[in-house]
Amino acid sequence: MSAPLLARTPRLRETPFSRRVEAAGAKGYTVYNHMLLPGAFRSLEEDYAHLKSAVQVWDVSVERQIEIVGPDALRLVQMTTPRDLARMADDQCYYVPAVDEAGRMLNDPVLLKLAEDRYWVSIADSDLMLYYKGLANGFRLNVSIFEPDVSPLAVQGPMANELIGRVFGPDIVATRFFRHKRVPVEGRDMVIARSGWSVQGGFEIYLEGSEHGEALWDRLFEAGADLDVQAGSPNLIERIEGGLLSYGSDITRTHTPFEAGLGRFCHLDTATACLGHAALLEQRDPIRKVRPLEIGGDPLQPSSRFWTLSSLSGEAVGHISSAVWSPDFQANIAIGTVGRAHWHAGTELVAETPMGDRPVCVRDSFWA
Amino acid sequence: MSAPLLARTPRLRETPFSRRVEAAGAKGYTVYNHMLLPGAFRSLEEDYAHLKSAVQVWDVSVERQIEIVGPDALRLVQMTTPRDLARMADDQCYYVPAVDEAGRMLNDPVLLKLAEDRYWVSIADSDLMLYYKGLANGFRLNVSIFEPDVSPLAVQGPMANELIGRVFGPDIVATRFFRHKRVPVEGRDMVIARSGWSVQGGFEIYLEGSEHGEALWDRLFEAGADLDVQAGSPNLIERIEGGLLSYGSDITRTHTPFEAGLGRFCHLDTATACLGHAALLEQRDPIRKVRPLEIGGDPLQPSSRFWTLSSLSGEAVGHISSAVWSPDFQANIAIGTVGRAHWHAGTELVAETPMGDRPVCVRDSFWA
Repeated sequence: MSAPLLARTPRLRETPFSRRVEAAGAKGYTVYNHMLLPGAFRSLEEDYAHLKSAVQVWDVSVERQIEIVGPDALRLVQMTTPRDLARMADDQCYYVPAVDEAGRMLNDPVLLKLAEDRYWVSIADSDLMLYYKGLANGFRLNVSIFEPDVSPLAVQGPMANELIGRVFGPDIVATRFFRHKRVPVEGRDMVIARSGWSVQGGFEIYLEGSEHGEALWDRLFEAGADLDVQAGSPNLIERIEGGLLSYGSDITRTHTPFEAGLGRFCHLDTATACLGHAALLEQRDPIRKVRPLEIGGDPLQPSSRFWTLSSLSGEAVGHISSAVWSPDFQANIAIGTVGRAHWHAGTELVAETPMGDRPVCVRDSFWA
Repeated sequence: MSAPLLARTPRLRETPFSRRVEAAGAKGYTVYNHMLLPGAFRSLEEDYAHLKSAVQVWDVSVERQIEIVGPDALRLVQMTTPRDLARMADDQCYYVPAVDEAGRMLNDPVLLKLAEDRYWVSIADSDLMLYYKGLANGFRLNVSIFEPDVSPLAVQGPMANELIGRVFGPDIVATRFFRHKRVPVEGRDMVIARSGWSVQGGFEIYLEGSEHGEALWDRLFEAGADLDVQAGSPNLIERIEGGLLSYGSDITRTHTPFEAGLGRFCHLDTATACLGHAALLEQRDPIRKVRPLEIGGDPLQPSSRFWTLSSLSGEAVGHISSAVWSPDFQANIAIGTVGRAHWHAGTELVAETPMGDRPVCVRDSFWA
């Protein structure tokens, strides 16, 4: 079942860029936040090589924004994350693991501060808005919570600075990592952030107003023609190399932030208003953890389901959640959740893959 | 973009029946609650004719269950729905529109009462669990909320009684509509309800324990071989004929229950604990409504996006959310949301379809 057909219905929302994405030759789609996310355009490997050498435009409208505005906006967001938000600047983006009262991951969004009382939560694949709405009702918070007509378009790759500079001017290129500015886009001030789901660097343009989508897309492609700008999408190979975890596979509802390797975002001394605070205090010393893994043998096809991990003595010790062959590192690179007794770098394990059992070695760090 | 490829990743969950579904020849999939839902097996039209004449087994694991258990369980569910739950019997299933504080639809699940303090919410396509969790935290309710390992398998069609009787005995066949019983299934008592997302009638078996999925599937197919039992799935043609609305397309987050034609489930005299109660009181007289529509002309392909509806004078008056050709009614049948001045039966409108403008007539009722 590696590439079945996607049955299209209006329930799977299109984006402001869908017609351009289709015209650019998207070979497949996945569904993320009830919306279409394109997969590869040429091939996974060709898109990967191009992403690392040139510049790509990605339709990541599926990163839906939840707007939270009102006097209690900060209080509400802080209830959901162990990351201390007290010193967040007005132009800052924060990666904020979102947890429930039991300290379990509900999402791993990026929070954009737009004003003291106004935030966007750029979500991974779960309806986190419903959690905010429930909390706001229950705690009788003074906030409005809604999904605005905002659709991020990412510009990623080593030539992203050049392309963004040409289209939006040198000021925006000076933006630091995970900071944002308001810049005129299609006649309206919009948010552009130095961010994006690759380790190549680049920007995300938060398109406001779906009707401007195609004009924005076209402007980027016209300005970048000599840069070999191409349509792309979050790339499995590049993001595993860089250790970017995917919520819903690498991180699930059963993981704590500590298990997901996100302990550095857990400010338990100060973020005591997080509803998961008491639970997280008990979870600082996890018994399993998300780890980088190298799988031996011939190049593997990308995994479409979890693969069981066993110790050399045959005991089940975890699972692999993402795996693919890396052309640059000439190895099968993977992400998995591994029990404490087996998570140390250098530990040898065995993975049950569709191509048979394979040797696995736990690594010290990700690749890129 | 009628049938692109679905890029498979572990984020899109398989079901306990996925291997059997694939072996049965599923031609495509959609994604629903982060999980795979098969589309047609032979063709939409062949599956439709078979569903109306024989019996089918549907993998509807995507109807995930949210278990709510504890002294405040009923109180929590009642906060989210205008349907009065006070007289619900222990063996009953209720269709419960779920709304937020503004009376807007968050989901349209089926609620199963398992005990006074224990419920399953069988959800449509949104993470309604997060809303329950937010409310439970905010109102400090004494409940546990989680997704159990339960995966519904539907048996639908005119021969469903015969097949279910053969496998589970005559007692379960006597079950009334939207009632459920506990029956031994694969060595364990499981819930079987007379329910399902077709108007042909049938049952849903709430499989507990994914490891029993393939044995259950095989037992149904062995027992029904002479009944021409086939793998199937919710059928677009049959469900439009029967007026079964799809959350996420026909009903969206912007609809109120009154707009969705669900006023009969709004018990505003008694269900005052619903958090949307005050808003719903103001919304009883909607200015738009979901309506059955007939589209003229040649057979249409199923819609994959909303189609704009205009009056004969060219004014935009709504949209079509579902449309398909019905072989039995020899007409293009559709569901749309239409403004008040134009929603009366017999009103003539115009739809912008990919096959050009088409005449539309508002109907008095659905077809089946």
